[in-house]
Amino acid sequence: MSTDGRANPSSNMTAALPGTPDPALLEDLVAANRILSDHGVLDAYGHISARDPANPGYYWISRSMAPALVSAADIIACDLDNNPVRPGETSLFFERVIHGEIFKARPDVMAVLHNPSPSLIPFCNSDTRLRPMVGSAAFLGEGAPVFDIRTVDEGGDLNICTIAQAKGLAQALGRHCLVLLRGHGAVAVGESIRQVVRRAIIAESNARQQIQAALLGPVHFLTAGEIEYAKRMKPKDPDRAWRLWKQRAMGG
Amino acid sequence: MSTDGRANPSSNMTAALPGTPDPALLEDLVAANRILSDHGVLDAYGHISARDPANPGYYWISRSMAPALVSAADIIACDLDNNPVRPGETSLFFERVIHGEIFKARPDVMAVLHNPSPSLIPFCNSDTRLRPMVGSAAFLGEGAPVFDIRTVDEGGDLNICTIAQAKGLAQALGRHCLVLLRGHGAVAVGESIRQVVRRAIIAESNARQQIQAALLGPVHFLTAGEIEYAKRMKPKDPDRAWRLWKQRAMGG
Amino acid sequence: MSTDGRANPSSNMTAALPGTPDPALLEDLVAANRILSDHGVLDAYGHISARDPANPGYYWISRSMAPALVSAADIIACDLDNNPVRPGETSLFFERVIHGEIFKARPDVMAVLHNPSPSLIPFCNSDTRLRPMVGSAAFLGEGAPVFDIRTVDEGGDLNICTIAQAKGLAQALGRHCLVLLRGHGAVAVGESIRQVVRRAIIAESNARQQIQAALLGPVHFLTAGEIEYAKRMKPKDPDRAWRLWKQRAMGG
Amino acid sequence: MSTDGRANPSSNMTAALPGTPDPALLEDLVAANRILSDHGVLDAYGHISARDPANPGYYWISRSMAPALVSAADIIACDLDNNPVRPGETSLFFERVIHGEIFKARPDVMAVLHNPSPSLIPFCNSDTRLRPMVGSAAFLGEGAPVFDIRTVDEGGDLNICTIAQAKGLAQALGRHCLVLLRGHGAVAVGESIRQVVRRAIIAESNARQQIQAALLGPVHFLTAGEIEYAKRMKPKDPDRAWRLWKQRAMGG
Repeated sequence: MSTDGRANPSSNMTAALPGTPDPALLEDLVAANRILSDHGVLDAYGHISARDPANPGYYWISRSMAPALVSAADIIACDLDNNPVRPGETSLFFERVIHGEIFKARPDVMAVLHNPSPSLIPFCNSDTRLRPMVGSAAFLGEGAPVFDIRTVDEGGDLNICTIAQAKGLAQALGRHCLVLLRGHGAVAVGESIRQVVRRAIIAESNARQQIQAALLGPVHFLTAGEIEYAKRMKPKDPDRAWRLWKQRAMGG
Repeated sequence: MSTDGRANPSSNMTAALPGTPDPALLEDLVAANRILSDHGVLDAYGHISARDPANPGYYWISRSMAPALVSAADIIACDLDNNPVRPGETSLFFERVIHGEIFKARPDVMAVLHNPSPSLIPFCNSDTRLRPMVGSAAFLGEGAPVFDIRTVDEGGDLNICTIAQAKGLAQALGRHCLVLLRGHGAVAVGESIRQVVRRAIIAESNARQQIQAALLGPVHFLTAGEIEYAKRMKPKDPDRAWRLWKQRAMGG
Repeated sequence: MSTDGRANPSSNMTAALPGTPDPALLEDLVAANRILSDHGVLDAYGHISARDPANPGYYWISRSMAPALVSAADIIACDLDNNPVRPGETSLFFERVIHGEIFKARPDVMAVLHNPSPSLIPFCNSDTRLRPMVGSAAFLGEGAPVFDIRTVDEGGDLNICTIAQAKGLAQALGRHCLVLLRGHGAVAVGESIRQVVRRAIIAESNARQQIQAALLGPVHFLTAGEIEYAKRMKPKDPDRAWRLWKQRAMGG
Repeated sequence: MSTDGRANPSSNMTAALPGTPDPALLEDLVAANRILSDHGVLDAYGHISARDPANPGYYWISRSMAPALVSAADIIACDLDNNPVRPGETSLFFERVIHGEIFKARPDVMAVLHNPSPSLIPFCNSDTRLRPMVGSAAFLGEGAPVFDIRTVDEGGDLNICTIAQAKGLAQALGRHCLVLLRGHGAVAVGESIRQVVRRAIIAESNARQQIQAALLGPVHFLTAGEIEYAKRMKPKDPDRAWRLWKQRAMGG
């Protein structure tokens, strides 16, 4: 991670070029950028990555740009120390350290999203936990954890720029699917690009609905049993939403 | 209902093919799917059905797909045990059991909608009842009932997959026009497709307005006399909204 | 007002045909219907009328239809007893009695709008008065009055269908520019179509802002002196908004 | 400032024509008008100006018109007494006195925006201060000041029409980046057009998020250290948002 000199590479190994990218994975990653923008869950900032299934020590992510403008040619590979595979890449998200550290800490995770989702911000700065209102939001469990960067760095920057900060974030994430960052935004993870996109969109609407419900009085969230049930089960037709959202975001 | 094996068919009769579908009914059902999507009352999930007027033991519903993408060719017939009339249909909504049980319990009902309408979710998880703010929402009566699936099934699934769950839901609906499902969404019924669509769109805006009003202090809902009056009267020009909404959703 | 038989014509005079309609007035009335729809201040229901400047005993209004679809050919003339000038007109707003009675009670008023503006509904059903947040909303004065139809009719209908109901509404309006109707919507009046459109759009945004402000604690509304000042002054460039809104709503 | 006769020119110097306008600056000023309109931060009213870098005693601003309709040909130059450089200009914003007085009081300021941003209005009329929820809003500091025109003028007009009013506003702004005007709107300043646009868009979303957060309980705003850090640092890629917003607002 040579571009800003702040991250401390944990490995000296020469980055090996992963195999030719899977076209389906690239297509999903481009679509994810467009869908998240179309839903207002991403605006000019934020980024989503996918671990390479054939080379789990690498991940794919766009160059530093607005997600709404990403095409397949903008997707590059990085190793888990966040060094680009192809030498000379300079236009890189400075917060990509989030992706490498989470992929290291969570071998089960195949996709990572960092985004300043508008309705999640109120929960980032509150003692009220974001909790599931409906079954599809059961991945929020008993409440999304909130990472306070001051627990690892008192410098005053709210961005995740160093390995230490990213490790602290990964620790706050733990086994959860979504972690909120005080004064900053959210990170969602999952076993596929499509699952992470679905979680991000559901988290945003769940947040709006929880705020509205709080106005009406005490809120009845999912029970522990319902959360456990949802974790055991696969969604019945998850790609139905993906196909609709992709068509809306990309035409066709 | 052979596709998921969970529903217990209450009848052994061979499904008889109902008459050729009424083109006007199919056109309304397609338009309903598009209008509800256009209003954000449906997104990728949810479904609307219409009882066949000539064969009241059957109903029409789309195959399992996003409502915004439904065309007339996607509409199929099911009997009230939710078995598709045409053999070999496999792409079916697993929650279609809702439709069959409500059509059985309510002979007056000619259309059923199940949807996760965004602003209704807060009322699904609250002790505050959804009540009518304006005359056109009088169908909400003294407050929409809330069905808690735990009253019939403690398994932890919030979806309505079994006959027992659907019967419980139909019982909670009773003689009402709309029932909320804790942690899940809503079911609206009516004497026509157009009436159900109108009720779903009005319920969503009524919910937003009730939440806003709750912020301002005590809310003055419709009186019992006003609710009774509205139930006795027919709306003066209900199709005015239908025509506008259809034009917006489908062009032309 | 022979079409629904409920209004009691207060005059036997044969409706005299007013002069050829002013094309500019018709153009403004069509644009008003489109602009109000484009702003979501009108949906399928509601209506706006303009008094004929050359024949102040008559007003122009569209036939009963969705405002978004109104063209010049849909505009008809009525006398102040709400009888259409041209015999045989049958497609008439049943609530047009509002227009006649307000034009009678308020000779200064040249345009009347009745609409179920979404963010005004919470104030229709609350003891909290709608009050001006900004100078352009000073027409709300010390707070918009709320008309409760039960003060004139206990029948249970919330619509304004009879002369007695419309007279009660006009009395509640008094010298105000906007009156709210419990459980129903609003009526705005002004000295021109453009002023009424501006007032309706500002009232809607003022309502949203007042609800948000109420969340933050005590709200500081315009002072009596500021309201008085605004009433004395003409807006500096009122047509700037009209031109923009018209271009957005109608293209060109 | 001869067009309305209310402002008292503080200088007798003949306005010298500044050099030919910088095409890049004009392009940014047009784009700013379109972007702010596209974001709903400006509607028909409000204006943005840029100081001429080569002639800091002059600024560029559009003629009095809706910002969404501004083209390069609509941009004119004024001196800091708000007199247009080219004689005969008559279509001028009457509140342009805001721009001249702030450019005089704040030599560091290169762009000024006055706008009635919808979600800022609640904070204009509240004792609750608008404070930063996220790092990009750190320019709000410990809270945006609120200017009450009654501190300089009891006449009842909420608009800033006189030098005395504009001086009072500039004093309330002080060294801040944004000042709220009771019953009116906001003024944002910055070292470039792009920075002011970014601040206005962030202020609007920050206001919405702060209102939502207030519903959830006590709000944890940025710490003093985080605000100081953000003030010292430059944003890493500020033009990423500008390029996206410009493409959305202007096509291409």
